[in-house]
Amino acid sequence: MPEGGPPTIVSIAERAGVSIASVSRVLNGVGARPETVRRVERAAAELGYVPNAVAQSLKGGRTKQLTFAMQDIGNPVYVAMVRQIQAVTRAAGYRLLLHSTDAVLEEELAVVRSLGDRTSDGLILCPIRITPEHIEVLKSAAGPVVVIGSLPGDVPVDAVAADSVTGARLAVTHLAETGRERIAFLNGPLDTVPGHNRRQGYLKALADHGIVPEPALERATSFGLAAGRAAMLDLLDSGAAPDAVFCANDQLALGAGQAAHERGLRIPEDLALVGMDDSELARAGWPPLTSVDLGSEERGRTAARMLLERLAQDATAARRITTAPRLVVRASSASRRGSAS
Amino acid sequence: MPEGGPPTIVSIAERAGVSIASVSRVLNGVGARPETVRRVERAAAELGYVPNAVAQSLKGGRTKQLTFAMQDIGNPVYVAMVRQIQAVTRAAGYRLLLHSTDAVLEEELAVVRSLGDRTSDGLILCPIRITPEHIEVLKSAAGPVVVIGSLPGDVPVDAVAADSVTGARLAVTHLAETGRERIAFLNGPLDTVPGHNRRQGYLKALADHGIVPEPALERATSFGLAAGRAAMLDLLDSGAAPDAVFCANDQLALGAGQAAHERGLRIPEDLALVGMDDSELARAGWPPLTSVDLGSEERGRTAARMLLERLAQDATAARRITTAPRLVVRASSASRRGSAS
Repeated sequence: MPEGGPPTIVSIAERAGVSIASVSRVLNGVGARPETVRRVERAAAELGYVPNAVAQSLKGGRTKQLTFAMQDIGNPVYVAMVRQIQAVTRAAGYRLLLHSTDAVLEEELAVVRSLGDRTSDGLILCPIRITPEHIEVLKSAAGPVVVIGSLPGDVPVDAVAADSVTGARLAVTHLAETGRERIAFLNGPLDTVPGHNRRQGYLKALADHGIVPEPALERATSFGLAAGRAAMLDLLDSGAAPDAVFCANDQLALGAGQAAHERGLRIPEDLALVGMDDSELARAGWPPLTSVDLGSEERGRTAARMLLERLAQDATAARRITTAPRLVVRASSASRRGSAS
Repeated sequence: MPEGGPPTIVSIAERAGVSIASVSRVLNGVGARPETVRRVERAAAELGYVPNAVAQSLKGGRTKQLTFAMQDIGNPVYVAMVRQIQAVTRAAGYRLLLHSTDAVLEEELAVVRSLGDRTSDGLILCPIRITPEHIEVLKSAAGPVVVIGSLPGDVPVDAVAADSVTGARLAVTHLAETGRERIAFLNGPLDTVPGHNRRQGYLKALADHGIVPEPALERATSFGLAAGRAAMLDLLDSGAAPDAVFCANDQLALGAGQAAHERGLRIPEDLALVGMDDSELARAGWPPLTSVDLGSEERGRTAARMLLERLAQDATAARRITTAPRLVVRASSASRRGSAS
């Protein structure tokens, strides 16, 4: 620590030989004699005072820091997003701070409210549930916010969303077209936006192919690896006998794959496997995992650019952008019959 | 944004009907009449001013935020650490901000220096290289720092380190004891602390078992999945014919496993595989990966506790703590002969 501790308005005033009020005026840019400004600024520099963050904040200025709040840093889809956001914000001279909320409502609300304490200039939030409380804090946020996810149209905040209904439909259609008929579905919580949307896509694709949905082939758990393994073991041991499983994200798929191996099933010969997100995990698994790219990286880049535009005080109306999904076929869902996949 | 923009010392003064100097004195706790304090605090609250972070910082106070800077949020070992750090710091009422530095020197130095801008109260840093520049910024840091990693004894900052020399020795000894003799080594960059230490452990274990090291069985790349796959393909295609491979972290091991599968090798029958970190990836792979727990979670918890102690102004000398490694044997290194593993 510098001698005497971190600089304060009081210690700067002492060193500069001016009043506290004078220091305050200088730091706030309110109006002070040039000689006073020089003395205060020199004293502040000598004491190691970094004026940008704190005093600039008091002037309504910039910390040059931005925050990205996501549900779970353990999910590679957020890692990919972070890399994109970081590249865009770094190029604009900002430091990116990350916050892992575990999707706890109070944490997500708190991070939006914390824009008021001026330690960050703006926020990208990636919530998996949108509640009335979310809408309330977003409407009264003290700084610009961009949401990666779905928002009602009347919330005055930019949002860029995936289209996971279509994404899920692509995944299940692919499985049906490779000749699978008993297509199981491992999902996250149904009360989340992704959980709800991916189930909609699953059901639509089944209907498109004249396949009657069976509740016994569905499981809703959490979006994680261990949860996927446990749910898949439960499904396999129940006698439901799926010939394929669509998993609502790649972490669930990795867990499902592990369960299948533990029960002596070969992928794809005995059980075709498809995930979602097309994260690094999909490319790393064995066999490589068929998945759906929901445009996470594109959403990260777009959200970062929209936030920078808001910081430049772009006064346009709140925007809603949707990224298109793309099926990526790999060995885990290879056709048994040689029919087109 | 609240009407009129974010609150400033000027707008608070107007609303409270007092001078700017009075507002400053109240926010700094320097001495003001109780009636003035009440008027300023009420006006600040009405304007949505969150006093804790900014003004408290000017008083040399607290933002109730802590920062954890790590190399790469994509590595599950850091994810596990974050969860532990977050649990400890949340319980003490702090918000944890994360920063992914990509091990870029200037980023790591900047995050230590940024303690001076008072947007965070303290820092846990997890560097993979310690340079003279690191030592310089750590010695003059404007707030408490704890390092997860190795530090010279004379740097006045707490540090908690792994013992990856012993960890690597455990891993390679295990492979030798299962009867393997051509033990390859996939490493990260040799100019990093983990890269250097893990190679030391590898060479010591070979020496212990009378195995002559062969440069053709070693590769040094980066600590990532894709790098591991590329290095392993190169090793296999070179004709070096390993019967086992020790990988300096689980991400390298996952990539190596993928390469082995692509070349038609069975794990462990044709190639035994051992990683390091015992991350979630180790448990998720197929077959499950033998690895070494270097105590990442323990290091995270310990670092968080030490930081909280420093914030409580514990004046003890800088501490050096080392966590002991633990071999976790799984199917990827199962013995071919049935000899003790």
